[in-house]
Amino acid sequence: MILTVTVNTALDVTYRVPALLPHAAHRVTEVAERPGGKGLNVARVLAALGHEVTVTGFAGGPTGRVVRDLLTGVTDALVPCAAPTRRTVAVVDQRTGDATQFNEPGPVVTPAEWSAFQEAYERLVAGADAVALCGSLPPGVPVGAYASLVRTARAAGVPVLLDTSGEALRRAVAARPDLIKPNAEELAELTGSHEPLRATQDARRRGARSVVASLGPQGLVAATPEGRWRATPPARLRGNPTGAGDAVSAGLLSGLVEGLTWPRTLARAVALSAATVLSPTAGDFDRAAYEDLAGRVAVTGEVTAA
Amino acid sequence: MILTVTVNTALDVTYRVPALLPHAAHRVTEVAERPGGKGLNVARVLAALGHEVTVTGFAGGPTGRVVRDLLTGVTDALVPCAAPTRRTVAVVDQRTGDATQFNEPGPVVTPAEWSAFQEAYERLVAGADAVALCGSLPPGVPVGAYASLVRTARAAGVPVLLDTSGEALRRAVAARPDLIKPNAEELAELTGSHEPLRATQDARRRGARSVVASLGPQGLVAATPEGRWRATPPARLRGNPTGAGDAVSAGLLSGLVEGLTWPRTLARAVALSAATVLSPTAGDFDRAAYEDLAGRVAVTGEVTAA
Repeated sequence: MILTVTVNTALDVTYRVPALLPHAAHRVTEVAERPGGKGLNVARVLAALGHEVTVTGFAGGPTGRVVRDLLTGVTDALVPCAAPTRRTVAVVDQRTGDATQFNEPGPVVTPAEWSAFQEAYERLVAGADAVALCGSLPPGVPVGAYASLVRTARAAGVPVLLDTSGEALRRAVAARPDLIKPNAEELAELTGSHEPLRATQDARRRGARSVVASLGPQGLVAATPEGRWRATPPARLRGNPTGAGDAVSAGLLSGLVEGLTWPRTLARAVALSAATVLSPTAGDFDRAAYEDLAGRVAVTGEVTAA
Repeated sequence: MILTVTVNTALDVTYRVPALLPHAAHRVTEVAERPGGKGLNVARVLAALGHEVTVTGFAGGPTGRVVRDLLTGVTDALVPCAAPTRRTVAVVDQRTGDATQFNEPGPVVTPAEWSAFQEAYERLVAGADAVALCGSLPPGVPVGAYASLVRTARAAGVPVLLDTSGEALRRAVAARPDLIKPNAEELAELTGSHEPLRATQDARRRGARSVVASLGPQGLVAATPEGRWRATPPARLRGNPTGAGDAVSAGLLSGLVEGLTWPRTLARAVALSAATVLSPTAGDFDRAAYEDLAGRVAVTGEVTAA
């Protein structure tokens, strides 16, 4: 079982409008809702790949209830909180396909709720093959939260992937996670370097065992104890990048638990990410595109001498 | 008891953002929610004026549950429907105070649900001193719905105020409501005339017993069997006009059930509307401003010779 943690779960609401005009009133022509937050997105992709997945994090209020009702294909181990789960609203302009995003801040989690979550997490980790810690922290959760969750997983001998940013990332890296997956901006914020090859190495020195940086259309750069690689999609892709980063996390985790080599794992992650960009539904991946792309990702690199 | 009908109830969500930028991602700094739809807004003002109010219409799904939980000071006689109640999202730009509005279309109401509502409405009307029929019709409700609800109220001898637009207004006017409260645009659409004095008279000929047109900052124009009046606020007001029209409806209804003269009723409606524009909270009225303004509204007109 793979455990994904989404401390700040969300209900992702998508509105389609004929045209977005600031300060006007808009009739929404189409409303779509689904569970959101990075960890739930990663779980959806892992489940589609055939993995057994359990999701945890917080769910509260009427929005939390909707999130739980909409979860399919994964085991729901979300922990209740009193304050309501946040919504995100993406307004898609039908002329251009561009989205304007509004993200609620998330529930204020109480110290007692955070303790209850940590206990639930410790029990779940004991039965997990790998753990993913994903996304932002809601108000009330201490900034060192991910560092503590990384330590719990390491103590249980369970590999942990971390995908977050800012101070939460900085602190958790010092707790020595197995794998971090920053984008270029998060990596630069962590290391102070805008040069991805240098920055991935620097992030390893700060405590991450392996670092896979996602560089958007340029693919992935990996720095690991086993070697360094670069994986690039076969062509420049047009589409919606929403969820592409979460598809990378899912690809990396699935490669990890299946014991794939780094080049095969990175190729899978890039193919999943590209197939997500190409999908007509934001955040889903196009399975035919994935299967086609999986064999066509270029991976170059060098293995570390044993 | 005053009965207000909101067939297409809503959960009104307000987001404050530092600045609205199309195609960007926004962190929402403040989220507020409250029951919405014109009839629920009218009910809130009537309750604040000390009237006993019952609200009906549809409520469905998780959003309907939230609407019902947030109702205070009024009797909840909403009728359940299977599809979820709509949300409206107002995004307020903190730099300018301007709002950008997104309105979901509303639940599809089934024929069986519409029948159940009509039965509930008939029972409620029997105990009402006056009825307000407010707002748009959700998908599935026949366009002649308000005409039928007007007839039911008239058969029970209960005066009925109607505030809607388009074809639903046109059909319901033919059913001879006691009072309609169109704005200038709705009145022009109904009558084809952009001249308010002429148009209010024309709307009476089409079936409405009395017509009170709201002309925004210019106040109200009334055409009734008792006479014709114009009521204007004492000064040009700066503020948020959200809910000002619903405050007019509440003022008219309260004057009607209290047996006030038309000039006193119109003065109250204008003062409530102005106090709503001046309120820091959209849709609420500022009580001190209301009490101050109530004596300072200019009403001019002529009484019909008996």
